[in-house]
Amino acid sequence: MALLLKGIEVSKSIKKDLEKRVSVLSEKGIKPCIAIIRLGDRPDDVSYEKNAVKKLTDLGIECKLFRFETVITQDELITNIRVINSDASIHGILLFRPLPRHINEDAVKIEISPGKDIDCINPVNLAKVFAGDESGFAPCTPEAVIKTLEYYGIPLEGKNVVVIGRSLVVGKPLSMLLLKENATVTICHTRTRNLKEICKKAEILIVAAGKAKIVDDTYVSQGATVVDVGINVDEDGKLCGDVDTDKILDIAEAVTPVPGGIGTVTTSVLAEHTVRAAEQTVS
Amino acid sequence: MALLLKGIEVSKSIKKDLEKRVSVLSEKGIKPCIAIIRLGDRPDDVSYEKNAVKKLTDLGIECKLFRFETVITQDELITNIRVINSDASIHGILLFRPLPRHINEDAVKIEISPGKDIDCINPVNLAKVFAGDESGFAPCTPEAVIKTLEYYGIPLEGKNVVVIGRSLVVGKPLSMLLLKENATVTICHTRTRNLKEICKKAEILIVAAGKAKIVDDTYVSQGATVVDVGINVDEDGKLCGDVDTDKILDIAEAVTPVPGGIGTVTTSVLAEHTVRAAEQTVS
Repeated sequence: MALLLKGIEVSKSIKKDLEKRVSVLSEKGIKPCIAIIRLGDRPDDVSYEKNAVKKLTDLGIECKLFRFETVITQDELITNIRVINSDASIHGILLFRPLPRHINEDAVKIEISPGKDIDCINPVNLAKVFAGDESGFAPCTPEAVIKTLEYYGIPLEGKNVVVIGRSLVVGKPLSMLLLKENATVTICHTRTRNLKEICKKAEILIVAAGKAKIVDDTYVSQGATVVDVGINVDEDGKLCGDVDTDKILDIAEAVTPVPGGIGTVTTSVLAEHTVRAAEQTVS
Repeated sequence: MALLLKGIEVSKSIKKDLEKRVSVLSEKGIKPCIAIIRLGDRPDDVSYEKNAVKKLTDLGIECKLFRFETVITQDELITNIRVINSDASIHGILLFRPLPRHINEDAVKIEISPGKDIDCINPVNLAKVFAGDESGFAPCTPEAVIKTLEYYGIPLEGKNVVVIGRSLVVGKPLSMLLLKENATVTICHTRTRNLKEICKKAEILIVAAGKAKIVDDTYVSQGATVVDVGINVDEDGKLCGDVDTDKILDIAEAVTPVPGGIGTVTTSVLAEHTVRAAEQTVS
């Protein structure tokens, strides 16, 4: 029976570390603070924001909410971002995307101060992830994957890791973080021909395909670790991942559940980035 | 006997295309122009510059040489880059690196106007390569690999491609360009454990390891295409690649020679970028 790599345990460990760091900052009169910028009221954004605010507040991080109408002009949005950039009491910025169509996302991304860009939106930080330079902020979900494997003592050095998915939010940056850990990385996607065969060779299989239960026992070899980054709703309206977990429990050595896996760790990583951004203002 | 994928043929084809485009620009009173910025007189830089100037000039591109002493301050260098950025007669900028130690390369990179950054130094362009966004400029060597395979009609879609090397100038950006062409990409490096076995599975093997002749017949499977990005000097003082070409000629379907392979195409790609940058000023 596969070991379940539960996100809650990873989050607890991050929380323990952050509590100390928040307390050190507090002694210096600093309270880590994140600006959450939301345009309109997309239900996904509202729900994510609500959960994030709860978790961040619980960790001693102040959340300042900036909510604008979707008709805001690009110039107005940029002006607001510049005000937030120059507000020394704010350490991190989270901007919900996609932005409305009349706004050029590239023009906005570059405006977010790299030092406050805790969600890796600015190309300066994205290029750092690409370069393996850890002085910036990586996207939260890929980093949550690395932190989870690290917490459970699953080494990456020299391992054959297969990533399904080549998105700019998960697949590609995750592949760079894995390379940084000296894994040998194979990036697969919708056009990959012999997907099953390739996945079967993986010592660690990471699925970020965005399709419910596409990976089952025919993709996994005995003793592999399977990380499921997907969050989908199945035919019964229940949350599920990209992996048909029940089918691989007897084959895999370890697997992240959905819900309760990587998704749980992502907000903790966002919190860690905010605290780190605050620390960098004093060091 | 493997087909030799000669760079000169690819360069000729690029030249033919560029001649037309340079002529169209000429009718509009524009002569594509590259600024080549060199600090000091490193023999490699001087030799590369000499060859590049010859080839670019031959293609109808003007070369403006900016040569500074290595003691130039960071501020002075940036001031000079800003002057070049704002000079409308200059379309592309090539800056030799590494820069002297007293200069923060990150601070300089971001100063090169993305529209003139034909060698992909600015993180804005690097992030675009990472994102699969073709509106910027990719690094020249990885693009030369893609152009060579394209010229010789070797499809990438769905192919298992193995890249040896994870540098930011070749391995990583090349992997992103290959993904963009829908190849399945495996990135190997010095810490990869079962390198031979992985390489044997490649339909296309691309070697950018920076070590003379490390790939021989034991790494290549029958019918594979092998691209050799290495440029080294062997024990007899002769130029050689990362592949022991003689040993794989009876196994591989096609192979790029060294010298006369990818290296030959790189300057043609630099020329294409300069012409494209010039075209973008009028469109």
